[in-house]
Amino acid sequence: MVASKKRGKQTVVLDSGPSIVTVASITGPMEGQGLLGPYYDQVLEDNLCGHKSWEQCESYMQQQVVQMVLAKGIMSMDQVDCILGGDLLNQLMAVHFAMRDTERPFLGIYGACSTFAASAAVGAMFIDGGFFKNVVTCVSSHHDAAERQYRFPTELGVQRPPIAQWTVTGAGGMLLSSEVSGKPKIKAVTLGKIVDMGLKDPNAMGPAMAPAAEDTIFTHLQDLGRDITYYDQIYTGDLGAIGKELVIQLLGEKGISARPYYEDCGCMIYEEKQDAHAGASGCASSAIAFCASIYPAMLQKKLRRVLLVGTGSLHSTTSYQQKESIPCIAHAISIEMD
Amino acid sequence: MVASKKRGKQTVVLDSGPSIVTVASITGPMEGQGLLGPYYDQVLEDNLCGHKSWEQCESYMQQQVVQMVLAKGIMSMDQVDCILGGDLLNQLMAVHFAMRDTERPFLGIYGACSTFAASAAVGAMFIDGGFFKNVVTCVSSHHDAAERQYRFPTELGVQRPPIAQWTVTGAGGMLLSSEVSGKPKIKAVTLGKIVDMGLKDPNAMGPAMAPAAEDTIFTHLQDLGRDITYYDQIYTGDLGAIGKELVIQLLGEKGISARPYYEDCGCMIYEEKQDAHAGASGCASSAIAFCASIYPAMLQKKLRRVLLVGTGSLHSTTSYQQKESIPCIAHAISIEMD
Repeated sequence: MVASKKRGKQTVVLDSGPSIVTVASITGPMEGQGLLGPYYDQVLEDNLCGHKSWEQCESYMQQQVVQMVLAKGIMSMDQVDCILGGDLLNQLMAVHFAMRDTERPFLGIYGACSTFAASAAVGAMFIDGGFFKNVVTCVSSHHDAAERQYRFPTELGVQRPPIAQWTVTGAGGMLLSSEVSGKPKIKAVTLGKIVDMGLKDPNAMGPAMAPAAEDTIFTHLQDLGRDITYYDQIYTGDLGAIGKELVIQLLGEKGISARPYYEDCGCMIYEEKQDAHAGASGCASSAIAFCASIYPAMLQKKLRRVLLVGTGSLHSTTSYQQKESIPCIAHAISIEMD
Repeated sequence: MVASKKRGKQTVVLDSGPSIVTVASITGPMEGQGLLGPYYDQVLEDNLCGHKSWEQCESYMQQQVVQMVLAKGIMSMDQVDCILGGDLLNQLMAVHFAMRDTERPFLGIYGACSTFAASAAVGAMFIDGGFFKNVVTCVSSHHDAAERQYRFPTELGVQRPPIAQWTVTGAGGMLLSSEVSGKPKIKAVTLGKIVDMGLKDPNAMGPAMAPAAEDTIFTHLQDLGRDITYYDQIYTGDLGAIGKELVIQLLGEKGISARPYYEDCGCMIYEEKQDAHAGASGCASSAIAFCASIYPAMLQKKLRRVLLVGTGSLHSTTSYQQKESIPCIAHAISIEMD
């Protein structure tokens, strides 16, 4: 078997174009009050939603998303060949507990906040490779669960610097299928490499991730011989206001004028007055922005060609305590609507 | 694209049969004194090996494994299309820091101790699907790093119950390729589903994982219409002495006499006198047993058909503290030597 689908250094083309048949999103109340509030499928009344812990609430959101993508696609669980997903919690606690009762093959993927794009990339490759017909992806993050795991006890209410971002409480997922037409298709995938520029401040994840995002975007365009104008819009996952400007600057240094074609999902979620500082972050940042805004715009053909670039900061509390720098990664999926 | 490679409920066949071109293993000193001691590629003199932390030592082991599989395969890093791997540390710290300088596309996979088989499964599917020619997988675990993350401060030396297993200090990896003949080939993959029988004791991971292992073995045989005698040997990843007996019992209840055809990697690593209690565990358990014993036996054609079943306990310290049960998973790869 020759690797006939690889192009350039890091990109593969999926000629069969697995379809994103349906998407679904669910969020916490703060996201519901934000810019995309009316467009989420479900908004929780509070961050526990009747559960005993934030982690259980996060698992509940994942379960809801999987049920919603299947209901929208008029598909039963037993038609699903495989579920792919992850979250930010240690040992992917949210998704593992959420998928316990599905009775479906499951593969856990960890790319920090890049996991939404990474899961879609792997799912699309599994379909294009002829292995599966129907794949469900699901990722989540929960502000309170992430805060106490990564930083301080949530109840402490530690003041956050202006450069910090706010972890999204939410979950989003896709139903990918080989058998549906008239839906956005994943036509290419660029798996990213780990980029570590030596930054060490875990409050400044946007700047840490920006070089990884730039690297993947630049490599993707090079690999496929595309100008940035090929895309109606390129979206990164959760760089926030500061990281977004860095990507524009870094691409500019390589002669690419990205500003008219580029947005960051972390800048699409909260209103200025919501005090989220530099923007949204978390696995759910790109997930809910994609499901509530980007995907519907593609269905309506307002956007025909999109590059979704999931961005992940791969540090842990242990690596921070050991004074390590922050390795980052970005995975891209190229989505087209005929 | 029709999912022509799927068989039954959870299995895919890889007709092209991606080859396991080379493998490599590295371990800590305790493993070096164990049953397979002479067969590891490298044995560290101590559990730090000149590094400042156990976590850094674990990353070093991963780096060494990647270098060794490439050196044995006479391949340079820039011929590698993709690296897949993981470990037990929160946010996959070991593998992410290890792969920082590779400049290769990387995908993090988390299936706890099933990650060695899971990474090989995904890598083989990526090659069989025509996406990549050369994929490297690498997983690791480190007893001291895992102990302090999952249980107690390592220096405390907390007494362990007899049912507990000993997390392997080690790393193992594969070079998978589409272009080599005369090597063991991955001919089928069965991705497991999450199985949770309600067990809650994190010291008793073997019994918790046994039903997941049995489920994947049984499903694999059903999906491909195979009798257990098709395989020269089936190996689970790290069930230990107690989990292994449970698998034999559970398969027996379904009419399958597994004992003559079944072994657990967790029972192959330590000598009785090494006080490892119920056996070995950790991502590296199946990795080093495969690389040091099973793969060489296949190369020598002492084993021609092997089913390697990676087994993973997907709990976290948070889930344990929240009194949750332990979700488990098992992924299988069917390996054949012509």
